[in-house]
Parts: sequence; structure tokens; C-alpha cells
Amino acid sequence: MYRSHSCGELRESHIQTAVTLSGWVSKTRDKGFVVWVDLRDRYGITQLVFDTDRTAPELLEKARNLGREFVIQIKGNVIERASKNANIPTGDIEVLVEELVVLNESKTPPFTIENETDGGEDLRMKYRYLDIRRNPVKENLIFRSKVAMEVRNYLSDQEFIEVETPYLIKSTPEGARDFVVPSRMNEGQFYALPQSPQTFKQLLMVGGLDKYFQIVKCFRDEDLRADRQPEFTQIDCEMAFVEQEDILNTFEGLTKHLLKSIKGVDVENFPRMTYDAAMAKYGNDKPDIRFGMEFGELNAVAQHKEFNVFNSAELVVGIAVPGANSYTRKEIDKLIDWVKRPQIGALGMVYCRCNDDGSFKSSVDKFYDQEDMAKWAETTGAKPGDLICILSGDTNKVRAQLSALRMELATRLGLRQNTEFAPLWVIDFPLLELDEETGHYHAMHHPFTSPKPGQLALLDTDPAAVRANAYDLVLNGNEIGGGSIRIHDKETQATMFKHLGFTPEEAKAQFGFLMDAFQYGAPPHGGIAFGLDRLVAILGGQETIRDFIAFPKNNSGRDVMIDAPAPIDDAQLKELGLKLDF
Amino acid sequence: MYRSHSCGELRESHIQTAVTLSGWVSKTRDKGFVVWVDLRDRYGITQLVFDTDRTAPELLEKARNLGREFVIQIKGNVIERASKNANIPTGDIEVLVEELVVLNESKTPPFTIENETDGGEDLRMKYRYLDIRRNPVKENLIFRSKVAMEVRNYLSDQEFIEVETPYLIKSTPEGARDFVVPSRMNEGQFYALPQSPQTFKQLLMVGGLDKYFQIVKCFRDEDLRADRQPEFTQIDCEMAFVEQEDILNTFEGLTKHLLKSIKGVDVENFPRMTYDAAMAKYGNDKPDIRFGMEFGELNAVAQHKEFNVFNSAELVVGIAVPGANSYTRKEIDKLIDWVKRPQIGALGMVYCRCNDDGSFKSSVDKFYDQEDMAKWAETTGAKPGDLICILSGDTNKVRAQLSALRMELATRLGLRQNTEFAPLWVIDFPLLELDEETGHYHAMHHPFTSPKPGQLALLDTDPAAVRANAYDLVLNGNEIGGGSIRIHDKETQATMFKHLGFTPEEAKAQFGFLMDAFQYGAPPHGGIAFGLDRLVAILGGQETIRDFIAFPKNNSGRDVMIDAPAPIDDAQLKELGLKLDF
Repeated sequence: MYRSHSCGELRESHIQTAVTLSGWVSKTRDKGFVVWVDLRDRYGITQLVFDTDRTAPELLEKARNLGREFVIQIKGNVIERASKNANIPTGDIEVLVEELVVLNESKTPPFTIENETDGGEDLRMKYRYLDIRRNPVKENLIFRSKVAMEVRNYLSDQEFIEVETPYLIKSTPEGARDFVVPSRMNEGQFYALPQSPQTFKQLLMVGGLDKYFQIVKCFRDEDLRADRQPEFTQIDCEMAFVEQEDILNTFEGLTKHLLKSIKGVDVENFPRMTYDAAMAKYGNDKPDIRFGMEFGELNAVAQHKEFNVFNSAELVVGIAVPGANSYTRKEIDKLIDWVKRPQIGALGMVYCRCNDDGSFKSSVDKFYDQEDMAKWAETTGAKPGDLICILSGDTNKVRAQLSALRMELATRLGLRQNTEFAPLWVIDFPLLELDEETGHYHAMHHPFTSPKPGQLALLDTDPAAVRANAYDLVLNGNEIGGGSIRIHDKETQATMFKHLGFTPEEAKAQFGFLMDAFQYGAPPHGGIAFGLDRLVAILGGQETIRDFIAFPKNNSGRDVMIDAPAPIDDAQLKELGLKLDF
Repeated sequence: MYRSHSCGELRESHIQTAVTLSGWVSKTRDKGFVVWVDLRDRYGITQLVFDTDRTAPELLEKARNLGREFVIQIKGNVIERASKNANIPTGDIEVLVEELVVLNESKTPPFTIENETDGGEDLRMKYRYLDIRRNPVKENLIFRSKVAMEVRNYLSDQEFIEVETPYLIKSTPEGARDFVVPSRMNEGQFYALPQSPQTFKQLLMVGGLDKYFQIVKCFRDEDLRADRQPEFTQIDCEMAFVEQEDILNTFEGLTKHLLKSIKGVDVENFPRMTYDAAMAKYGNDKPDIRFGMEFGELNAVAQHKEFNVFNSAELVVGIAVPGANSYTRKEIDKLIDWVKRPQIGALGMVYCRCNDDGSFKSSVDKFYDQEDMAKWAETTGAKPGDLICILSGDTNKVRAQLSALRMELATRLGLRQNTEFAPLWVIDFPLLELDEETGHYHAMHHPFTSPKPGQLALLDTDPAAVRANAYDLVLNGNEIGGGSIRIHDKETQATMFKHLGFTPEEAKAQFGFLMDAFQYGAPPHGGIAFGLDRLVAILGGQETIRDFIAFPKNNSGRDVMIDAPAPIDDAQLKELGLKLDF
């Protein structure tokens, strides 16, 4: 037993108790006649005291020589502090040390182990084990563990079974790139790491397991964008004998439980919005609805004058920015520069000030009169004191641009509070989406998603119009989960593969086992998967998932701490029947 | 809503209730005037009834045409059964059907979906999704899920944190072969899949996380023996500021909790036995102590006569087989043949009958008298009516042979009851073991295991004598967990690597990050890992882990259902900078 108590445990009631503590030397303050040491472990900090009156001289000397991050064990007595510290739970007491053992020394750490560290991102990653000692990182990992436990408890209570699906599976060219694993026992052949357990969970439904979940690692060999990881964690779920309504209710229940148990937040029934409505009102299929600023489509009230920019546009659309009439001309010019940046790509922005006296002043007063602008205000919901920002152009592009502007302004205006949670179901997604480059249609969700009843024939005539039994759960402008009701008969699945450009042979080679399974009494089924990394980050009130992963990889997919990936031995390659060739 | 109740739910109290059920047609019995259908789902079986008196003719006809494993939905009324079936929970009632919808048809399954199936292993693996519909497999998967939940609940209550460690790590030649994953973004470099999260969990201890666990997949590219899988699941645990005693107590607590909560079995404090004692008493480091038949070493009482077989042996050792004096000469000859099989490899077996009258009759009566044999009986604990089986030869070999014989006889005698649970700690393992082929020493547990205090110097003079702070948890003759107190300082770790044949450069290249970490205040720490697959199988009273894995691989490492591994596209290989070469 290295300790009788943790460093976060001792209170006034422990005064006069003999204790043994172990932990790290967080800080030493040497006042000559007295030395204080802050001893830290996972649970908190306890102040140790050594002084000339009560401490043996050798022990005092030993305390003086303790370096930062030394690991020590002490025995001593809990005493009342002379000057209490209300900022920490152990602030009423300190421990007068009688014995001190150095369990391990420490070199000076490359950055300070404090809430606000002086370590840069790279250094913190290389010494991640020291970074984890810092409270914010440690608390994030504990928080993640707690969220995962709550998910498991809730789903288990609902009779869901956690089933482990295999990690060594088969590569399928559909979707993102697979990581592959050469097989030594089957030379020239490869396993693939799963991008998700999709087909396996569907097979479990065919197998009658009814309610499945799994918290599981998934893998995608993508060129990494910021805040994407090659390995990530999903809460993967599937149910049989269900309709969309059953899935939405079940996982709305889970999400409410998490918000309540983890954050203490009660949320009303989640609103639902079609994909089309989300795109029209927010320019985005994962709208942040913590604030308004909904899109007002202005074609009808802005294309009747001589302003060609608007007249030639497919869509003219604006938002009312609350209180932003106070922006100076300079501030507005900066905003125009912001939307013209290549990342956003707007060609310009028309604005209209809504003055307190009810009059309007716009950048296109040449073309439009007060009556026109009153209609713009009405359509965008602008009130006196607001600023209307208007973009125009191709529908898809201009919606994306205005959506980006809306989010940016909301952030600037403090409308995106991380203590507020606004979940939303987005439903009725398109089944397919057009790849502009290749001219081919892809499955928007995945090839196993079922079209809305009665829309199968439409695939031949107007594929883009087909809607799917697919849904996303959106929280504060982030997609935290997505799923669908699946196809469960061989013919529909074959039709779907055909429309996705698979030959019957390709479909059979890659997904023959699933189509076979559909012939042996597959029940109606559907499911959902949540991105745990993102869910945890958002619940934790933060935006970067990396801070909630114990050992993340950098943007080149490297673990800089262990220095992986790395070359392997020639012998190893030879055993695998492989040769480097680049 | 496809159903109002499950097929396992309806009781007498539901009589007169209108219900909707969905499930699979398990069986149809057509008596002409009445048709009964057994409707099955995950939760049970409910009998449906259709008859000429109460059912519309078209509906009766529809029921007649239902095939096995059709998926149907019915609406009807719960009525009392005329002849009740006490064997199933729903046996008091049946449902008089009013509406029937066929949700999906089914081809005739390749084997029967019943508790005892006519499907062979290969067929069951190819159609695993149908095999899972069978009760025994389904119940195993539900059982596994329950065990995992109990593990998580228990450890979470003890303030353990579940932390996900990475799957894409670095290959290390030590130990078993790694599966590797070529990196596309870092050409010519590879990740490896973890054989265990060993170094990461130690780094979490350096990071101050104190009590870690994870239920996690691990990977080993071994030539598969029966009942080994290339991917398997570990309950991986680590604690800081602990001694061996703390770990044993903590995980004895976990194991007791599992036995109690899952099996309803109370177990006393677990006995502890040193490795040396286990080898001497049972010839095995994972002895099954549900029964006696402990080894009696007979050198002192069997090497004093003219019997050269014994005199030239390093070890003469016997066991008393209870009641086996009743074996015929023929049966004993068969036993001798059994130990002489190449899998066991004994050259012969001496036996000694312990007659009811207190006299002895052995196969070596030429050499030994009654007094000698009385001593053998005393040493082996044999009583009148027992049979003493004696093997001799090289200590290690003969112990392994007699251990195999002991287990075989216990099985034959019905002494290995799967309702009885006898856990045991085996402690004080050797730190190193000699590889007979290469003449080199390997780490018996792994290179991070600490030697017993004060024994470090012994590594230079008598490496085989060094004992480790290492322990195994054994249950009913199976190792279900193993662990150790780790090295936590750089010097000891470097010494250990040196003795394992690493050059300092190799040690630094492979484990530099860990040795670096030890310089920044690594706390004393240790841990344990349980094999979940085996633990679940043993708790479930079975021996093959494959029946507790949803989608297992066969002995060639193949998933025959999805047909993996499989060749990949040339384009994929090219992107990875690889060429096939075999």
C-alpha cells in the first residue's frame, strides 16, 4: 500500500489523522524556515509542510531538494492550515511530514505541468504522457470514460447487446480508402480494417439479435483534414423490426439521457427538419439552431429591378444580423473581405442597414427603394438595429457561403454558448448525391440505405429526387450521429448496387454474403452511428476532438510519441510476400 | 412499430389482449382443421393458432404456405392454450391470429435453426448469421455482453477509467509476430496492430491516470492452433502506486464479483501457489484444483532398487487415481497407449494397484516389495481402491506428461464439473525462460516485468533463478489472466533489455519513448490482463472460445462468411508503394 488516502481526499475532518500519500511534486515553495510542497495525484493536490520548528533538519533538507515531478511517498499528520485556500477542496488542511521517500526522480519536464502550459502542440504530443498529467487533458479522458459508461448503461437497460465485430475484414473499394493488412498465412491476400461494422451489424439483425450496439474503433485512410483521425470511435447501433420513428425515439432517449446525466441539462423533444428545409433555412444539413438568423430567400423581392447581379443569380438570400447596424463601414468592409476569401468564395456581399427609425440604407440604394428593402427585412425577419447581409449566385454555392457567414457572425456575437445544447433531427436526406467531377451518383449515406417507400422506380428517371429513410442527429451545428433504415431484400439491394455503378459480378464479389443473407429471412432493420470523439468534445464544450483522445495522431497520421508508422524489417516483408515499390 | 410484445413475453395475464408480434417462423404444424405456427424472436417462442372455426379461409391458407424462417408480422388475440406446455415460458397461451403479413420470405436454410443443429462446423461458419439465430450461439453472445458489462460496472465503481489506446502503433520484433498496416501517407512505412496495449497503459500510469482499464481487441499473427484467433479480446488493466498484493486483491475482487453476479457462485479467498509449487504438485503452471490427484515425487522411495528405468530418471513421479483399481488390465493397457501417443510422448507407465485389503500389485513387482509400494501410496496419497500411475524421465517432460494424464483421467472420472469454479493465483514466476532451440533467454511474461527486489544482480550469474513480480489467475485449469509489477526506472529497464539480447540502439529504437518516459517521474505500477474470450467461455461452462465470438475466423485465419482475406486491386497496392513478391 503506497497510500492511505489520495491527494484529493483530505478535509478538516481528517485533522489529527496519520496518513500516507503518494504523488508528484507539483510545486515547492521554500521560505527558509518553512518549505511547502504541493503533492499532486489524479484526484487533487494536497499541501505538505516542513518547517524548522517541527521537522528534523535532514528531512527539511530532503524536502528542499525535491525537483518538479519527482514521485514521492510521505507519511505525516493532517493539520489545520494557518491560511486556508478556498480554491481547492483540500485547502483547509496540510500534512506535516514525518517521513519522505523519493520513489522516482524526474528530469525537468519539457513544459510545465499546469492547467495553462507553456508547451506547444508538437512538444505536448511528443510527451503526451506528461501532457496527460495536466488537469484539462486528464479531465477530458475521465469525461470520455464517463460518457461511454453512460451510453453503455442506457443501452444495456434498453436490452441492447454489445457485440464485438471483427477488425480483420475485407476491403471494399466503395467509400473512403481502407487500411489494409497483408496476410502472411494467405500470401498475396489482405484483410482490411473496418470503416464501420456496417455489414456485420446488419448480419446480426439477420441473425435475430434485434438490438445491437458497440463502442468500436473504425479506420479511414483519408488525407487528413484538421481534426480528423485515421482511427476514430463510433457508437454503432442497429435494431430490427423497427421503422424510422422507433430509431429516432430510441436514440433521442439516449441523447437526452447523456445531456441529463453528464451535463445536468433537460432538453425538450428534439425538433425535426427535412434535409430540404435545413438547406433552405440554414444552407447546411447540420444547422446550429441555438440562434436564429434563418435564411430569407429574396428572389421574389429582389429580382424585379435593374440590378443584374441579383437578376442573373439562381438564388438571392439574406440573413438578419441582430444589432449589427452598429457596425461601422470599415467593419462591414472587413466582413465583405471575409466572405470573399477563397475558403468562402463569395464574389461580394450586399448589405442593408435597418435603422432605428424604421428606414433602410443599403449598398444598392441605386436600384432599390425603401419599400423593396422593407420586404427584405420582412423576409429575413430583420428588426430596427439589425444588418441584413445578402449573397447571390448558384443555389448550392451561395447557401454554403451564407451558412459560413452565419456561423462566423454568431460566433462573433457570442450566440454559440457551449453551455447551451440544441439537438435537432435532420430527416429525409437524398438517397444519392451527384459527384460533380465524375458525373456519377454516390450513396449519400451508404449503399445499404433504403429509399422512401414507392420511390424505387424514380431511380431510373430522376435519381436526385429520390429521398431516403436516412437521418442525422445534429447538436450545436455538428453532426453527432447518422443512420438509416436499411434495405432488407436482395432485389432492392441489387437495384441499388446497379444504380451505384456496380456490375452484378462486382456486387456479388464484394457484398455477396450480405445479399445471400437477405434471402434467408432478413427482418426490416435500421440503425445509427454516433461519432464518440466528436460527441464527447461537444458535450465537453470544446471543438477539437484531439483533446479527448489519449494518444492522437497528427495531421500526417503519425504518432510522434512512439514514432509510428516506421520501416519494418526485410525479413518481415519477405514473410508477407511483399516488396517495397515506390 | 412492428410489434407490441416480444415472442417471449406473453403469459396467462395477457389473455384477451390484442397483440402484434413479429418474428421468424420456427415450425409449422398443419393438422388440417388447425395450423399451429411457432413464432420465434430473440426473446422466445410464441405459438400462433389458425383454425377452420375461427380463421378466415384465405388467412388459414396463407398460414399453411409459410415456410421455415419466413419473417412475419401478425395481429391477434391472446387466448388460453388447450394443452399447456410447461417447457417454455409462454406455454400457457397462444395467439389466435387475425392478420398476417409476410415481411420477408426465406429460402430453405442450409441447416436447421434448432438447439441441436444438423449443420457441420464449416456450414455454420459460412452462414454464421443463421447460426446466430440458434439459441446456444445467441445465448453465448448475450452472455458475453453481460460479462463485459459486469466487468465495466465493477471497475468503474472502483474508480477505474476506461481509456482507448491506439490500434495503429509500431511494430516491435519482440514476442509474437505483428500484423502490419502499410501507411499510404508515409510510403515504405508501416503501422502495427497491437498485441496488447502494454506500453500505452504504462504511459498512462506515467501520465498519472492511476487506475486504467480497457476491453480491447489485440492481434497476433501466429500460426493458429486450435482455439486461437488472430484477433482476440483482452480486459486490460493497470494501476499506479501499487504492490503485487494490491493488484491481487483488486482483481480477486473483480473475479469474485463476476462469479457471484454472473453465476451466483460465492468463492472463498483465492488460494495462492508459487510457480515452483504448481510445477511440482501439478506439473503445470495453470493447475486445475477442482480435484486432487496431486503429484507425489517418488525418487527417494523408488530409486533404491535394481529398476534402471527409475534409477536413470531425473524424476519419478506418480498420482493416485481414485477408485481406479477397478480398471481392467485392458483398460490400463489403453491408458499406457494413451501416454505413449506422440502428443504426450511418455515412453511407458508404471502402475500400482492399491487393493481393498491394503496389499499392492504393481507392474514392477519384480523390483519392488509391498513396503516400497506402501511408501508410494503414502507419497501419492493413494487409498485402497486407487490406482497409482507413475511416470519417469526428465523433470520438465515427465511433469508435462503426468499433468496431461492427470487432466485426462479427471475428465474421464467426471471430476471437472463446469458448475464448479476453483480460482487460484500462481505467483513468483521465473523472470526469464530459456529457449531450448536458440539457447537464449526470453522474458517469460514480457520485457517490462520487474524482477523480485534484490534479484537484479542474479541476472548476471544465474538468470534462470531470478523470480519476477509476476502472477497468473487460473480458473479450472485455464489461465484467465496474467500480469506483473512493472519496471519503472530507466536503468533497470535498460539492464533487462540487455539481458534479453537487445543492443542499446535496438532498445532505444523500439522502446526509447518508454525509457524516456521513465525519466520524468514514473510511479511504481503494475497490472494484469484477462483474456475475455476464454474467461467468458469458462464462465459459460464451455471450453471452445469460438462459440463465444460473433464472427470467428477458422484455423487458417480466414473469415469464410465474407471470404477474407482477399486480393486487393493493383491500384491500391500501387498507392501503398507495394508489390507482391512471393
